[in-house]
Amino acid sequence: MPLCGWMKVFHELVQRKVQLHNTRQLFLNLGKPKSHSHVLEYSFNDKEHQTEEEVKNLLRSPLIPLFLSHRRTRLLNPEMGVAAKIAPSMLSSDFANLASEAKRMLSLGADWLHMDIMDGHFVPNLTIGAPVIESLRKHTTAYLDCHLMVTNPLDYVDPMGKAGASGFTFHVEVSKENWQELVQKIKAKGMRPGVAVKPGTPIEEVYPLVEGENPVEMVLVMTVEPGFGGQKFMPETMEKVQVLRKKYPSLDIEVDGGLGPSTIDVAASAGANCIVAGSSVFGASKPGQVISLLRKSVQGAQQNN
Amino acid sequence: MPLCGWMKVFHELVQRKVQLHNTRQLFLNLGKPKSHSHVLEYSFNDKEHQTEEEVKNLLRSPLIPLFLSHRRTRLLNPEMGVAAKIAPSMLSSDFANLASEAKRMLSLGADWLHMDIMDGHFVPNLTIGAPVIESLRKHTTAYLDCHLMVTNPLDYVDPMGKAGASGFTFHVEVSKENWQELVQKIKAKGMRPGVAVKPGTPIEEVYPLVEGENPVEMVLVMTVEPGFGGQKFMPETMEKVQVLRKKYPSLDIEVDGGLGPSTIDVAASAGANCIVAGSSVFGASKPGQVISLLRKSVQGAQQNN
Repeated sequence: MPLCGWMKVFHELVQRKVQLHNTRQLFLNLGKPKSHSHVLEYSFNDKEHQTEEEVKNLLRSPLIPLFLSHRRTRLLNPEMGVAAKIAPSMLSSDFANLASEAKRMLSLGADWLHMDIMDGHFVPNLTIGAPVIESLRKHTTAYLDCHLMVTNPLDYVDPMGKAGASGFTFHVEVSKENWQELVQKIKAKGMRPGVAVKPGTPIEEVYPLVEGENPVEMVLVMTVEPGFGGQKFMPETMEKVQVLRKKYPSLDIEVDGGLGPSTIDVAASAGANCIVAGSSVFGASKPGQVISLLRKSVQGAQQNN
Repeated sequence: MPLCGWMKVFHELVQRKVQLHNTRQLFLNLGKPKSHSHVLEYSFNDKEHQTEEEVKNLLRSPLIPLFLSHRRTRLLNPEMGVAAKIAPSMLSSDFANLASEAKRMLSLGADWLHMDIMDGHFVPNLTIGAPVIESLRKHTTAYLDCHLMVTNPLDYVDPMGKAGASGFTFHVEVSKENWQELVQKIKAKGMRPGVAVKPGTPIEEVYPLVEGENPVEMVLVMTVEPGFGGQKFMPETMEKVQVLRKKYPSLDIEVDGGLGPSTIDVAASAGANCIVAGSSVFGASKPGQVISLLRKSVQGAQQNN
């Protein structure tokens, strides 16, 4: 069967077992598909088009759950394991030059950009909100991994969705009553839901959210008390990561706080694959080397396990 | 008596009856004095220095209350009246390029940069906090006119002071119990205290703050409901401005919300002299012309009164 347009790229990605977690690379080849149906339309508008049924079958393949939304695309192959994602925390960047800081981090190999949304109530610091995400989105198609340290995450789903957030990670401590509604609305807005736990919160509290009918797709284990950058890594939080990884082999597990060359091996061995790093990256003379070192540590630990 | 170093500039400013409300111009000539004592030291380190007593006497002059802090300097001559200050609201700027947006506005004639700090609780929007002010401060010595739409302004005095805020305007609606402590702490951190009122709040509520022993130095009359940019100006709020201007001829009175070429004359005639303008400036094809028009309207109204 002849492949054409984005299907060529898609096929090649599958052949190469490439796992994509953001749209950037795909958009470079595909242009900007707006929705699932737009992708179909896109491929059929190609000169050497194939039948609609063929494309639909491919999309239905159990190998490739395809997630498409306005700004982000995710291809997940459960056989591929969980890829390392290095997410520089923009809290440590120059907020007065966010567009160029983002570009710099991506060019140095960052997979995601971690955005710390703090409301001065859930944590004693106020950082940035949806208007900043909206401005940044105009300059990049990168995966914006947004961590909402707010008391009322439900109120942020609409504005963050409109602003162009990619991941929406809320705190379990403030969502016990409404996490199902939250997850549903986050997905409806085309974002990827995640749940975060503070160091003092038992990890068991996230189990229902990972195992539910409409589950979160990432767990963020805070390795410092949330609120500020530059804090010291708390090794005692690693037990949570180990327990999670054992229980959920293909879950995205993110760690945030005090991660850098001296702490990454512990976190990677415990099973973390999404690594948020602020001062260790932005404070380094060669941030690209730190990003690379963090990724290698995660990949090395995965090979050893 | 021979004048030297920064004293020359200072003297010239007094001669020319120039009123400075931010450090920018002064720093261009003076370098960066760190404190009152540093200014003395600075002048004495000049080759043609004068006696310490002479400088101290000049500083004590009733004509020239001199306010110096780490980053900002204010010379106030009560005979000079209230100067027009045009403050583009950075809420309407490109938050991903804040440093260059700030530079652009200043080069186009902006006097202040208005910074909207919203916590998602006092208002249903979360914008930027102290970390963003801190980043921006590294790129500019401009007067950062910070409007705190937060439920707990007292918690922000320290971080905003450290970040380099120039003005700290809190809301009267959340400060009835502790405004005295607030004003004192704001001044102690080298910032200029202001008080803001929502459209629904009676203007009488700010009188004690303006008339107190340790008064605020600006009143911000909100001309829209705070929370978002791009709203329609509420002309009914002008009565508050008129009442304030009649009562306090030399007070800085700021208006914020829906100000632009079509509404400035009403606000200027009512007596406002500090003009916050967001979308009307950033959305204009020639923002410099809008800034200039706003200033001329304020100056024209002052001459007519």
